[in-house]
Amino acid sequence: MEEERKKESEFRIKIDRDSDSYEDFVDQIKTSIEAKDQTSLKSMLDGAHPADVVTLFKDLEKEEELYLFRLLSYEDQAYSLIKMEEETLESFLEELSVDEISKTIGHIETDETTYLLSYLPSAKRELVLANLSKTDSFEIRSQLGFREYSAGRLMSKDFATVTITDNVRKGIINVRKKAKEIEDIYQVYVTNEDGVLEGFIPLKDLFLTPINTKVSKITNFSVFAFHYDVDQEEVANTFKKYDLVSAAVTDDLGRIIGRITVDDVLEIVEEEASEDILLMAGVSEDERLSTPILQSVKRRIVWLNVNLLTAFVSSTVVAFFEDTISQIVVLATLMPIVAGLGGNAGTQSVTVVIRNIATGDLSFSNWWDAVRKEFTIGVLNGLALGAVTFTMIYLVKGNLTLGLVVGTAMFVNMMVASLVGSLVPILLKSMKIDPAIASSIFVTATTDVCGFFFFLGLATVFAKYLV
Amino acid sequence: MEEERKKESEFRIKIDRDSDSYEDFVDQIKTSIEAKDQTSLKSMLDGAHPADVVTLFKDLEKEEELYLFRLLSYEDQAYSLIKMEEETLESFLEELSVDEISKTIGHIETDETTYLLSYLPSAKRELVLANLSKTDSFEIRSQLGFREYSAGRLMSKDFATVTITDNVRKGIINVRKKAKEIEDIYQVYVTNEDGVLEGFIPLKDLFLTPINTKVSKITNFSVFAFHYDVDQEEVANTFKKYDLVSAAVTDDLGRIIGRITVDDVLEIVEEEASEDILLMAGVSEDERLSTPILQSVKRRIVWLNVNLLTAFVSSTVVAFFEDTISQIVVLATLMPIVAGLGGNAGTQSVTVVIRNIATGDLSFSNWWDAVRKEFTIGVLNGLALGAVTFTMIYLVKGNLTLGLVVGTAMFVNMMVASLVGSLVPILLKSMKIDPAIASSIFVTATTDVCGFFFFLGLATVFAKYLV
Repeated sequence: MEEERKKESEFRIKIDRDSDSYEDFVDQIKTSIEAKDQTSLKSMLDGAHPADVVTLFKDLEKEEELYLFRLLSYEDQAYSLIKMEEETLESFLEELSVDEISKTIGHIETDETTYLLSYLPSAKRELVLANLSKTDSFEIRSQLGFREYSAGRLMSKDFATVTITDNVRKGIINVRKKAKEIEDIYQVYVTNEDGVLEGFIPLKDLFLTPINTKVSKITNFSVFAFHYDVDQEEVANTFKKYDLVSAAVTDDLGRIIGRITVDDVLEIVEEEASEDILLMAGVSEDERLSTPILQSVKRRIVWLNVNLLTAFVSSTVVAFFEDTISQIVVLATLMPIVAGLGGNAGTQSVTVVIRNIATGDLSFSNWWDAVRKEFTIGVLNGLALGAVTFTMIYLVKGNLTLGLVVGTAMFVNMMVASLVGSLVPILLKSMKIDPAIASSIFVTATTDVCGFFFFLGLATVFAKYLV
Repeated sequence: MEEERKKESEFRIKIDRDSDSYEDFVDQIKTSIEAKDQTSLKSMLDGAHPADVVTLFKDLEKEEELYLFRLLSYEDQAYSLIKMEEETLESFLEELSVDEISKTIGHIETDETTYLLSYLPSAKRELVLANLSKTDSFEIRSQLGFREYSAGRLMSKDFATVTITDNVRKGIINVRKKAKEIEDIYQVYVTNEDGVLEGFIPLKDLFLTPINTKVSKITNFSVFAFHYDVDQEEVANTFKKYDLVSAAVTDDLGRIIGRITVDDVLEIVEEEASEDILLMAGVSEDERLSTPILQSVKRRIVWLNVNLLTAFVSSTVVAFFEDTISQIVVLATLMPIVAGLGGNAGTQSVTVVIRNIATGDLSFSNWWDAVRKEFTIGVLNGLALGAVTFTMIYLVKGNLTLGLVVGTAMFVNMMVASLVGSLVPILLKSMKIDPAIASSIFVTATTDVCGFFFFLGLATVFAKYLV
């Protein structure tokens, strides 16, 4: 018993896809659904986290999912919708009636409601909004008005405030009023009489201070606030840099209109990093294991066709030197080495630069440092690898000129790789294009073309020493 | 004024590297350091966030950094140490005396102290520990005893508890006792009389409930807890999956020994994602823009040399077909296309699989689904790209057999790419090797070898129709 505990974390989770009994569990669920045995289904799902129910959905058929979904409490329905991947969510929202959706979203905070409604076609969305209370629908409408991926979209409208001229008692009363709607309150925001943000008070300080104390006495004025139109990536980077737990969102006049908490940011950090990895490999940023195959194929094939095109371009460079190759056929065996290594070195530069742009460490103030560093690395790596290649070729083939040609081409191509690899993402960024999308293909195309050109070009010039 | 506000988020930050006045600011700082003008330095840094001071350090010389550092309050010193990148931190800890370090770390929580001390050489660490109070040094020692990258290392030992048999009054008293040491309290953990974790109470509920209420009445029993030896990546994935704000850490007997909050997890999510991107490109996982050039070179060159080796291997495959190439030199221009596209398709599969392993969406229960999906994509993309290539070659070169040879080789290589690309990371993972490190090189080496082999092999078989 103790041994077992040692290895497993002890969540209160009832559904674990990796457990041995999981398949049996799914079978039971399926049987009970077929028998429409609501009692045993409810007892099997009792205490299950909505996130786990969504995991379970992956192993069920569409109709089974919906049947099970409708057995959940409205609150669990709402949370399971939130935890679904995009495609599953869309198909669910399609199946559910306006009435069902309206009932469900009554149980979550405005930012989450806004998120879910953004996936509805506008006609159906209007019907759902008409079903909500005036205040709710007004709030959601105004939040839907913010730009996608902005702080305004991300924020929750549920927060507690107190005016700076009030005393602590008033603050506690305000928290009490909000406590029912808001799941987690970490702090109370302090505003002036016009609602302009002044500071904040950590919840524990509010409760542990004598109630007649002036709010201004315990206000922390180092408050972080984002304008509603700030990009969510900037929000995430600021949270990371300053280790924030929550931050306010303000309107054009500096009045607080929402709050963002670190758990909202967690998802963004994850998404942005995932996006970078996937985009760099030419996979759509939202491809998941659950993405339908044809959709994956459709998206990936675009990238492969672009690659095919650049491959044809670089092959015309080779074609240009067909005469030389037909005389010295060993060139055909060596040319992919020069081109390939350039591609690898270029990818290293691209990756480091893209990652540093994403984390905010590389900005317009220090791009030149980054390029200079990458180029220096390129020169040094080029010298080292050029020397290794020269030595290997000379030893194996016994031809000094051949070794020199390969080594020199390698050296030059590595320099090109580091320069292009660092400049391209920075240029794309300055043109407001996501550098993760297009950089790597551009860089490897360049290193292929240059690699073939330098190597075969040099070989053609020194052809008479190579035969 | 309003316009300006619209664009900028209004943090209380005084140091902004991207602002126009930043260079002047750095110059002023440098001049004041030279003049040892502590008064103006302190006023210039007044209200600056330690994270910003660390950013400023990047533009100063080593001695200037240290001079400025020593002007900070002990608390700000501690936080700026925490925000430093590994190499800067190490060099700082080397320069600071045992006495200085001891004074500084008195002002932060145990998990942060443990983090800083883990960067000290053990002799110096012992001296610092000897300077601390018995309780502190005992706590830090025990935390240093946990495995690196485990929940135990990550957790903070500062948390408030209440026994389930007590009433709310006792809970509030316990919070009050801890309030001075702990920056953020979100919840109070509920234990039985042996300290075994039973549940938690959100702070607002504790304060808003009549003080004579039994703790058991308002305890939320759906508490998340990790055993101290659980890996931090699992911790992060659980936080993401269940949208946690904080979780308990327990010992072998289920007693609470610490807590992890979502802001600790933010850094891990970022790190793990960064690591994957960098490792896949053959860059060391902790390479930053600030990494010294020679260190970057040293680390990247290892990867490039491995690549060079695999490139030589695949070039021997080409060498095997030199006779065919010397007869039909067009093969040399086309062979990189087949190999290259296979590499691209393989990288797509590798990336999707690695990302899904990292996020926990791909586990041992569904790896076969993933491989089957990737292979199906490989077949479909292979058919499509094979057809495109066939058509293009046939139209351009006017040789039906050549088109068929290229197209078929392309098709087969794409299938191999998807299979190898999905299987290799899963295999590495099952052997407890980080799939991000070695997968992509293995996959591209395979697609190179197979691409050259299938294409040149087929060409050799059908050589007489190609001339």
